[in-house]
Amino acid sequence: MSIITIERRVLEKNDQIASRNRDLLARHRVFCINMVSSPGAGKTSILERSLLLLKERVRVAVVEGDVQTDLDARRVAKFGVPAVQIVTRGGCHLEANLVSDALQSLDLAAVDLLIIENVGNLVCPSNYDLGETMKVVVASIAEGDDKPLKYPAMFRNSGLLIINKIDLVPYVNCNPATLRANALQINPSLTVLETSCTTGEGISEWCDWLVAGVSPART
Amino acid sequence: MSIITIERRVLEKNDQIASRNRDLLARHRVFCINMVSSPGAGKTSILERSLLLLKERVRVAVVEGDVQTDLDARRVAKFGVPAVQIVTRGGCHLEANLVSDALQSLDLAAVDLLIIENVGNLVCPSNYDLGETMKVVVASIAEGDDKPLKYPAMFRNSGLLIINKIDLVPYVNCNPATLRANALQINPSLTVLETSCTTGEGISEWCDWLVAGVSPART
Repeated sequence: MSIITIERRVLEKNDQIASRNRDLLARHRVFCINMVSSPGAGKTSILERSLLLLKERVRVAVVEGDVQTDLDARRVAKFGVPAVQIVTRGGCHLEANLVSDALQSLDLAAVDLLIIENVGNLVCPSNYDLGETMKVVVASIAEGDDKPLKYPAMFRNSGLLIINKIDLVPYVNCNPATLRANALQINPSLTVLETSCTTGEGISEWCDWLVAGVSPART
Repeated sequence: MSIITIERRVLEKNDQIASRNRDLLARHRVFCINMVSSPGAGKTSILERSLLLLKERVRVAVVEGDVQTDLDARRVAKFGVPAVQIVTRGGCHLEANLVSDALQSLDLAAVDLLIIENVGNLVCPSNYDLGETMKVVVASIAEGDDKPLKYPAMFRNSGLLIINKIDLVPYVNCNPATLRANALQINPSLTVLETSCTTGEGISEWCDWLVAGVSPART
Protein backbone atom coordinates (compact mmCIF):
# COMPACT_ATOMS: atom_id res chain seq x y z
CA MET A 1 0.00 0.00 0.00
CA SER A 2 2.68 2.50 0.98
CA ILE A 3 4.58 1.61 -2.16
CA ILE A 4 1.64 2.54 -4.36
CA THR A 5 1.29 5.84 -2.49
CA ILE A 6 4.94 6.68 -3.02
CA GLU A 7 4.76 5.78 -6.69
CA ARG A 8 1.71 7.97 -7.11
CA ARG A 9 3.54 10.81 -5.40
CA VAL A 10 6.54 10.34 -7.70
CA LEU A 11 4.27 10.55 -10.74
CA GLU A 12 2.39 13.58 -9.36
CA LYS A 13 5.65 15.37 -8.66
CA ASN A 14 6.85 14.45 -12.16
CA ASP A 15 3.66 15.79 -13.72
CA GLN A 16 4.01 19.11 -11.89
CA ILE A 17 7.53 19.59 -13.24
CA ALA A 18 6.38 18.43 -16.69
CA SER A 19 3.70 21.16 -16.62
CA ARG A 20 6.34 23.75 -15.87
CA ASN A 21 8.48 22.42 -18.74
CA ARG A 22 5.44 22.60 -21.02
CA ASP A 23 4.73 26.21 -20.00
CA LEU A 24 8.35 27.19 -20.58
CA LEU A 25 8.39 25.54 -24.02
CA ALA A 26 5.05 27.17 -24.92
CA ARG A 27 6.34 30.61 -23.92
CA HIS A 28 9.18 30.13 -26.38
CA ARG A 29 6.83 28.51 -28.93
CA VAL A 30 9.00 25.40 -29.12
CA PHE A 31 7.51 22.27 -30.74
CA CYS A 32 8.85 19.45 -28.58
CA ILE A 33 8.67 15.74 -29.32
CA ASN A 34 9.61 12.88 -26.99
CA MET A 35 10.93 9.97 -29.09
CA VAL A 36 10.39 6.57 -27.50
CA SER A 37 11.12 3.02 -28.67
CA SER A 38 12.73 -0.30 -27.86
CA PRO A 39 16.53 -0.24 -27.72
CA GLY A 40 17.95 -0.22 -31.24
CA ALA A 41 14.77 0.73 -33.11
CA GLY A 42 16.75 3.49 -34.79
CA LYS A 43 15.88 6.76 -33.03
CA THR A 44 19.42 8.14 -33.25
CA SER A 45 19.89 6.94 -36.82
CA ILE A 46 16.68 8.72 -37.83
CA LEU A 47 18.06 11.92 -36.28
CA GLU A 48 21.37 11.46 -38.10
CA ARG A 49 19.44 11.18 -41.36
CA SER A 50 17.22 14.20 -40.59
CA LEU A 51 19.25 16.87 -38.85
CA LEU A 52 20.94 18.41 -41.89
CA LEU A 53 17.59 18.61 -43.70
CA LEU A 54 15.86 20.05 -40.63
CA LYS A 55 18.57 22.61 -39.93
CA GLU A 56 17.87 24.29 -43.26
CA ARG A 57 14.22 24.83 -42.33
CA VAL A 58 13.98 25.28 -38.53
CA ARG A 59 16.23 25.85 -35.54
CA VAL A 60 16.53 22.42 -33.94
CA ALA A 61 18.04 21.19 -30.66
CA VAL A 62 18.31 17.68 -29.22
CA VAL A 63 18.22 16.22 -25.71
CA GLU A 64 19.64 12.69 -25.55
CA GLY A 65 18.63 10.33 -22.75
CA ASP A 66 20.73 7.23 -22.12
CA VAL A 67 21.25 4.73 -19.32
CA GLN A 68 25.00 4.96 -19.84
CA THR A 69 27.49 6.66 -22.21
CA ASP A 70 27.26 9.86 -24.26
CA LEU A 71 27.58 7.99 -27.57
CA ASP A 72 24.25 9.31 -28.89
CA ALA A 73 24.87 12.97 -28.07
CA ARG A 74 28.21 12.71 -29.85
CA ARG A 75 26.53 11.21 -32.93
CA VAL A 76 24.03 14.06 -32.98
CA ALA A 77 26.41 16.92 -32.13
CA LYS A 78 28.39 16.16 -35.31
CA PHE A 79 25.59 17.83 -37.26
CA GLY A 80 26.19 21.15 -35.54
CA VAL A 81 22.96 21.29 -33.54
CA PRO A 82 22.79 22.08 -29.81
CA ALA A 83 22.78 18.69 -28.02
CA VAL A 84 22.48 17.91 -24.32
CA GLN A 85 23.17 14.43 -22.95
CA ILE A 86 21.31 13.13 -19.91
CA VAL A 87 22.82 9.93 -18.46
CA THR A 88 20.35 8.24 -16.11
CA ARG A 89 22.99 5.90 -14.58
CA GLY A 90 20.77 2.84 -14.70
CA GLY A 91 17.44 4.69 -14.71
CA CYS A 92 15.01 3.16 -17.19
CA HIS A 93 13.33 6.38 -18.41
CA LEU A 94 13.69 10.16 -18.50
CA GLU A 95 11.83 12.18 -15.89
CA ALA A 96 10.62 15.76 -16.12
CA ASN A 97 13.18 17.10 -13.62
CA LEU A 98 16.07 15.78 -15.74
CA VAL A 99 14.58 17.46 -18.81
CA SER A 100 14.06 20.66 -16.78
CA ASP A 101 17.80 20.70 -16.04
CA ALA A 102 18.57 20.10 -19.72
CA LEU A 103 16.27 22.97 -20.80
CA GLN A 104 18.29 25.36 -18.64
CA SER A 105 21.39 24.66 -20.67
CA LEU A 106 19.64 25.45 -23.98
CA ASP A 107 18.88 28.91 -25.41
CA LEU A 108 15.17 28.25 -25.99
CA ALA A 109 14.67 31.64 -27.63
CA ALA A 110 16.81 30.24 -30.46
CA VAL A 111 14.98 26.89 -30.76
CA ASP A 112 11.90 26.09 -32.86
CA LEU A 113 12.00 22.32 -32.58
CA LEU A 114 13.26 20.32 -29.60
CA ILE A 115 13.70 16.59 -30.03
CA ILE A 116 14.06 14.57 -26.83
CA GLU A 117 15.38 11.06 -27.43
CA ASN A 118 14.28 8.95 -24.48
CA VAL A 119 15.98 5.84 -23.07
CA GLY A 120 15.35 2.77 -25.23
CA ASN A 121 12.48 1.14 -23.35
CA LEU A 122 9.01 0.37 -24.66
CA VAL A 123 7.40 0.21 -21.20
CA CYS A 124 8.50 2.71 -18.54
CA PRO A 125 8.78 6.02 -20.47
CA SER A 126 5.06 5.80 -21.31
CA ASN A 127 4.18 6.81 -17.73
CA TYR A 128 6.40 9.87 -17.55
CA ASP A 129 5.27 13.14 -19.07
CA LEU A 130 8.31 15.32 -19.80
CA GLY A 131 6.36 18.39 -20.92
CA GLU A 132 6.61 17.46 -24.59
CA THR A 133 4.03 18.47 -27.18
CA MET A 134 3.75 14.87 -28.34
CA LYS A 135 5.31 11.44 -27.99
CA VAL A 136 6.61 9.78 -31.16
CA VAL A 137 7.01 6.01 -30.98
CA VAL A 138 9.51 4.31 -33.30
CA ALA A 139 9.06 0.60 -34.03
CA SER A 140 11.62 -1.30 -36.08
CA ILE A 141 10.07 -3.69 -38.57
CA ALA A 142 12.60 -6.27 -37.31
CA GLU A 143 10.85 -6.31 -33.91
CA GLY A 144 7.74 -8.00 -35.30
CA ASP A 145 4.23 -6.76 -35.94
CA ASP A 146 2.73 -7.75 -32.56
CA LYS A 147 4.43 -5.05 -30.48
CA PRO A 148 1.46 -2.61 -30.27
CA LEU A 149 -0.67 -5.41 -28.77
CA LYS A 150 2.03 -6.47 -26.32
CA TYR A 151 3.13 -2.96 -25.25
CA PRO A 152 -0.08 -0.96 -25.73
CA ALA A 153 0.54 1.99 -23.40
CA MET A 154 3.32 3.44 -25.52
CA PHE A 155 1.24 3.29 -28.70
CA ARG A 156 -1.84 4.65 -26.91
CA ASN A 157 0.10 7.67 -25.58
CA SER A 158 1.85 8.60 -28.82
CA GLY A 159 0.67 10.84 -31.65
CA LEU A 160 2.95 9.49 -34.37
CA LEU A 161 4.24 6.00 -35.12
CA ILE A 162 7.35 5.64 -37.25
CA ILE A 163 7.79 2.16 -38.71
CA ASN A 164 11.55 2.13 -39.24
CA LYS A 165 13.97 -0.20 -41.07
CA ILE A 166 11.29 -0.65 -43.71
CA ASP A 167 14.05 -1.82 -46.10
CA LEU A 168 14.26 -5.06 -44.06
CA VAL A 169 10.70 -6.13 -44.97
CA PRO A 170 11.84 -8.75 -47.52
CA TYR A 171 14.07 -10.42 -44.92
CA VAL A 172 11.91 -10.54 -41.79
CA ASN A 173 8.73 -12.30 -40.77
CA CYS A 174 6.79 -9.09 -40.17
CA ASN A 175 4.10 -7.41 -42.20
CA PRO A 176 4.09 -3.60 -41.99
CA ALA A 177 0.35 -3.55 -42.79
CA THR A 178 -0.30 -5.80 -39.78
CA LEU A 179 1.93 -3.64 -37.57
CA ARG A 180 0.02 -0.56 -38.72
CA ALA A 181 -3.37 -2.23 -38.16
CA ASN A 182 -2.37 -3.43 -34.69
CA ALA A 183 -1.18 0.07 -33.76
CA LEU A 184 -4.39 1.69 -35.05
CA GLN A 185 -6.44 -0.86 -33.11
CA ILE A 186 -4.77 0.43 -29.92
CA ASN A 187 -4.86 4.09 -30.97
CA PRO A 188 -7.05 4.98 -33.98
CA SER A 189 -5.77 8.58 -34.07
CA LEU A 190 -2.11 7.63 -34.63
CA THR A 191 -0.39 9.11 -37.68
CA VAL A 192 1.87 6.46 -39.26
CA LEU A 193 5.04 7.02 -41.31
CA GLU A 194 7.43 4.42 -42.75
CA THR A 195 11.16 5.14 -42.85
CA SER A 196 14.49 3.57 -43.70
CA CYS A 197 17.78 5.08 -42.63
CA THR A 198 19.55 2.83 -45.14
CA THR A 199 17.65 3.96 -48.25
CA GLY A 200 16.40 7.31 -46.93
CA GLU A 201 12.78 6.35 -47.65
CA GLY A 202 10.28 8.42 -45.68
CA ILE A 203 12.86 10.78 -44.17
CA SER A 204 11.63 13.83 -46.06
CA GLU A 205 8.01 13.07 -45.03
CA TRP A 206 9.21 12.83 -41.42
CA CYS A 207 10.98 16.19 -41.73
CA ASP A 208 7.85 17.73 -43.30
CA TRP A 209 5.77 16.41 -40.39
CA LEU A 210 8.15 17.99 -37.87
CA VAL A 211 8.31 21.34 -39.66
CA ALA A 212 4.51 21.40 -39.88
CA GLY A 213 4.41 21.04 -36.09
CA VAL A 214 6.52 24.13 -35.58
CA SER A 215 4.43 27.21 -34.86
CA PRO A 216 3.43 28.83 -38.18
CA ALA A 217 4.76 32.15 -36.91
CA ARG A 218 8.17 30.60 -36.73
CA THR A 219 8.59 29.15 -40.21
CA MET B 1 15.27 9.65 0.74
CA SER B 2 12.15 7.73 1.69
CA ILE B 3 11.73 6.69 -1.93
CA ILE B 4 15.17 5.13 -1.96
CA THR B 5 14.38 3.29 1.28
CA ILE B 6 11.18 1.89 -0.15
CA GLU B 7 12.89 0.84 -3.35
CA ARG B 8 15.58 -0.92 -1.37
CA ARG B 9 12.91 -2.69 0.65
CA VAL B 10 11.13 -3.79 -2.55
CA LEU B 11 14.39 -5.26 -3.87
CA GLU B 12 15.21 -6.94 -0.53
CA LYS B 13 11.75 -8.48 -0.38
CA ASN B 14 12.12 -9.61 -4.00
CA ASP B 15 15.50 -11.18 -3.26
CA GLN B 16 14.08 -13.12 -0.30
CA ILE B 17 11.34 -14.62 -2.48
CA ALA B 18 13.88 -15.27 -5.25
CA SER B 19 15.98 -17.25 -2.76
CA ARG B 20 12.98 -19.36 -1.89
CA ASN B 21 12.31 -19.95 -5.60
CA ARG B 22 15.97 -20.93 -6.06
CA ASP B 23 15.79 -23.39 -3.14
CA LEU B 24 12.61 -24.93 -4.53
CA LEU B 25 14.12 -25.30 -8.00
CA ALA B 26 17.33 -26.75 -6.55
CA ARG B 27 15.37 -29.33 -4.53
CA HIS B 28 13.81 -30.50 -7.79
CA ARG B 29 17.14 -30.13 -9.63
CA VAL B 30 15.58 -27.84 -12.23
CA PHE B 31 17.94 -25.85 -14.46
CA CYS B 32 16.22 -22.48 -14.79
CA ILE B 33 17.09 -19.69 -17.18
CA ASN B 34 15.65 -16.17 -17.23
CA MET B 35 15.59 -14.91 -20.84
CA VAL B 36 15.86 -11.12 -21.15
CA SER B 37 16.06 -8.79 -24.15
CA SER B 38 14.64 -5.72 -25.86
CA PRO B 39 11.12 -6.14 -27.23
CA GLY B 40 11.22 -8.10 -30.45
CA ALA B 41 14.74 -9.51 -30.15
CA GLY B 42 13.28 -12.95 -30.79
CA LYS B 43 13.02 -14.75 -27.44
CA THR B 44 9.71 -16.43 -28.30
CA SER B 45 10.84 -17.29 -31.83
CA ILE B 46 13.95 -18.97 -30.42
CA LEU B 47 11.70 -21.05 -28.16
CA GLU B 48 9.46 -21.96 -31.09
CA ARG B 49 12.54 -23.17 -32.96
CA SER B 50 13.91 -25.11 -29.95
CA LEU B 51 11.07 -26.72 -28.05
CA LEU B 52 10.54 -29.78 -30.25
CA LEU B 53 14.29 -30.50 -30.21
CA LEU B 54 14.50 -29.94 -26.45
CA LYS B 55 11.45 -32.08 -25.67
CA GLU B 56 13.20 -35.14 -27.08
CA ARG B 57 16.10 -34.71 -24.65
CA VAL B 58 14.77 -33.12 -21.43
CA ARG B 59 11.47 -32.33 -19.74
CA VAL B 60 10.97 -28.62 -20.39
CA ALA B 61 8.45 -26.07 -19.11
CA VAL B 62 8.04 -22.38 -19.92
CA VAL B 63 6.90 -19.33 -17.94
CA GLU B 64 5.96 -16.40 -20.19
CA GLY B 65 6.06 -12.85 -18.86
CA ASP B 66 4.24 -10.12 -20.78
CA VAL B 67 2.96 -6.63 -20.13
CA GLN B 68 -0.29 -7.51 -21.89
CA THR B 69 -1.82 -10.46 -23.82
CA ASP B 70 -1.14 -14.20 -23.64
CA LEU B 71 0.07 -14.33 -27.26
CA ASP B 72 3.48 -15.75 -26.29
CA ALA B 73 2.17 -18.53 -24.02
CA ARG B 74 -0.16 -19.59 -26.83
CA ARG B 75 2.75 -19.70 -29.29
CA VAL B 76 4.73 -21.87 -26.88
CA ALA B 77 1.90 -24.14 -25.71
CA LYS B 78 1.42 -25.34 -29.32
CA PHE B 79 4.54 -27.43 -28.85
CA GLY B 80 2.95 -29.44 -26.07
CA VAL B 81 5.08 -28.19 -23.19
CA PRO B 82 3.66 -26.93 -19.88
CA ALA B 83 3.37 -23.15 -20.23
CA VAL B 84 2.27 -20.54 -17.70
CA GLN B 85 1.50 -16.94 -18.72
CA ILE B 86 2.16 -14.09 -16.30
CA VAL B 87 0.58 -10.80 -17.43
CA THR B 88 2.10 -7.87 -15.53
CA ARG B 89 -0.63 -5.40 -16.60
CA GLY B 90 1.78 -2.59 -17.38
CA GLY B 91 4.60 -3.77 -15.13
CA CYS B 92 7.97 -3.48 -16.84
CA HIS B 93 9.61 -6.66 -15.46
CA LEU B 94 8.88 -9.97 -13.76
CA GLU B 95 9.32 -10.15 -9.98
CA ALA B 96 10.09 -13.18 -7.85
CA ASN B 97 6.63 -13.32 -6.27
CA LEU B 98 4.99 -13.61 -9.71
CA VAL B 99 7.35 -16.44 -10.60
CA SER B 100 6.67 -18.07 -7.21
CA ASP B 101 2.96 -18.15 -8.10
CA ALA B 102 3.76 -19.62 -11.51
CA LEU B 103 5.95 -22.34 -9.97
CA GLN B 104 2.99 -23.51 -7.90
CA SER B 105 1.04 -24.32 -11.03
CA LEU B 106 3.85 -26.47 -12.46
CA ASP B 107 4.71 -30.05 -11.48
CA LEU B 108 8.40 -29.37 -10.80
CA ALA B 109 9.11 -33.04 -10.13
CA ALA B 110 8.45 -33.53 -13.84
CA VAL B 111 10.61 -30.63 -15.07
CA ASP B 112 14.34 -30.66 -15.86
CA LEU B 113 14.57 -27.33 -17.62
CA LEU B 114 12.48 -24.26 -16.86
CA ILE B 115 12.68 -21.34 -19.27
CA ILE B 116 11.32 -18.02 -18.01
CA GLU B 117 10.75 -15.49 -20.77
CA ASN B 118 10.85 -12.06 -19.17
CA VAL B 119 9.10 -8.88 -20.34
CA GLY B 120 10.88 -7.30 -23.33
CA ASN B 121 12.93 -4.63 -21.57
CA LEU B 122 16.70 -4.23 -21.61
CA VAL B 123 16.81 -2.15 -18.41
CA CYS B 124 14.48 -3.05 -15.54
CA PRO B 125 14.61 -6.89 -15.42
CA SER B 126 18.36 -6.71 -14.71
CA ASN B 127 17.65 -5.63 -11.10
CA TYR B 128 15.19 -8.41 -10.29
CA ASP B 129 16.44 -11.84 -9.32
CA LEU B 130 13.71 -14.41 -9.98
CA GLY B 131 15.58 -17.37 -8.48
CA GLU B 132 16.89 -18.49 -11.88
CA THR B 133 20.16 -20.38 -12.32
CA MET B 134 21.27 -17.88 -14.92
CA LYS B 135 20.12 -14.94 -17.04
CA VAL B 136 20.36 -15.32 -20.82
CA VAL B 137 20.37 -12.05 -22.76
CA VAL B 138 19.20 -12.07 -26.39
CA ALA B 139 20.32 -9.22 -28.67
CA SER B 140 19.02 -8.96 -32.22
CA ILE B 141 21.68 -8.01 -34.74
CA ALA B 142 19.18 -5.46 -36.07
CA GLU B 143 19.43 -3.48 -32.81
CA GLY B 144 23.02 -2.38 -33.50
CA ASP B 145 26.34 -3.38 -31.98
CA ASP B 146 26.49 -0.64 -29.31
CA LYS B 147 23.79 -2.05 -27.01
CA PRO B 148 26.13 -3.71 -24.45
CA LEU B 149 27.82 -0.33 -23.87
CA LYS B 150 24.51 1.52 -23.61
CA TYR B 151 22.67 -1.04 -21.45
CA PRO B 152 25.57 -2.62 -19.52
CA ALA B 153 23.73 -4.03 -16.47
CA MET B 154 21.87 -6.66 -18.46
CA PHE B 155 25.04 -7.91 -20.14
CA ARG B 156 26.98 -7.81 -16.86
CA ASN B 157 24.35 -9.92 -15.06
CA SER B 158 23.93 -12.57 -17.76
CA GLY B 159 25.85 -15.80 -18.30
CA LEU B 160 25.00 -16.29 -21.97
CA LEU B 161 24.54 -13.85 -24.83
CA ILE B 162 22.57 -14.98 -27.87
CA ILE B 163 23.14 -12.80 -30.93
CA ASN B 164 19.93 -13.49 -32.84
CA LYS B 165 18.71 -12.70 -36.38
CA ILE B 166 22.25 -13.36 -37.58
CA ASP B 167 20.81 -13.90 -41.08
CA LEU B 168 20.18 -10.13 -41.27
CA VAL B 169 23.92 -9.25 -41.10
CA PRO B 170 24.18 -8.46 -44.84
CA TYR B 171 21.32 -5.97 -44.60
CA VAL B 172 22.07 -4.02 -41.39
CA ASN B 173 24.76 -1.64 -40.27
CA CYS B 174 25.92 -3.84 -37.40
CA ASN B 175 28.99 -6.01 -37.04
CA PRO B 176 28.47 -9.16 -34.93
CA ALA B 177 32.20 -9.18 -34.03
CA THR B 178 31.85 -5.65 -32.63
CA LEU B 179 28.70 -6.61 -30.72
CA ARG B 180 30.53 -9.61 -29.26
CA ALA B 181 33.61 -7.52 -28.35
CA ASN B 182 31.46 -4.83 -26.70
CA ALA B 183 29.60 -7.48 -24.68
CA LEU B 184 32.85 -9.15 -23.57
CA GLN B 185 34.25 -5.76 -22.58
CA ILE B 186 31.31 -5.41 -20.16
CA ASN B 187 31.40 -9.06 -19.04
CA PRO B 188 34.48 -11.11 -20.01
CA SER B 189 32.94 -14.36 -18.75
CA LEU B 190 29.93 -14.27 -21.12
CA THR B 191 29.40 -17.27 -23.36
CA VAL B 192 28.26 -16.09 -26.82
CA LEU B 193 26.12 -17.96 -29.35
CA GLU B 194 24.81 -16.75 -32.72
CA THR B 195 21.37 -17.84 -33.90
CA SER B 196 18.85 -17.32 -36.67
CA CYS B 197 15.25 -18.44 -36.38
CA THR B 198 14.88 -18.01 -40.15
CA THR B 199 17.72 -20.33 -41.19
CA GLY B 200 17.97 -22.37 -37.98
CA GLU B 201 21.66 -21.50 -37.59
CA GLY B 202 22.91 -21.97 -34.04
CA ILE B 203 19.68 -23.52 -32.70
CA SER B 204 21.22 -26.95 -32.09
CA GLU B 205 24.19 -25.36 -30.27
CA TRP B 206 21.69 -23.45 -28.11
CA CYS B 207 19.81 -26.67 -27.33
CA ASP B 208 23.11 -28.41 -26.49
CA TRP B 209 24.00 -25.57 -24.14
CA LEU B 210 20.66 -25.90 -22.34
CA VAL B 211 20.84 -29.69 -22.07
CA ALA B 212 24.41 -29.43 -20.69
CA GLY B 213 23.04 -27.18 -17.95
CA VAL B 214 20.54 -29.78 -16.81
CA SER B 215 21.80 -31.82 -13.85
CA PRO B 216 23.85 -34.79 -15.21
CA ALA B 217 21.77 -37.16 -13.06
CA ARG B 218 18.75 -36.07 -15.08
CA THR B 219 19.94 -36.65 -18.65
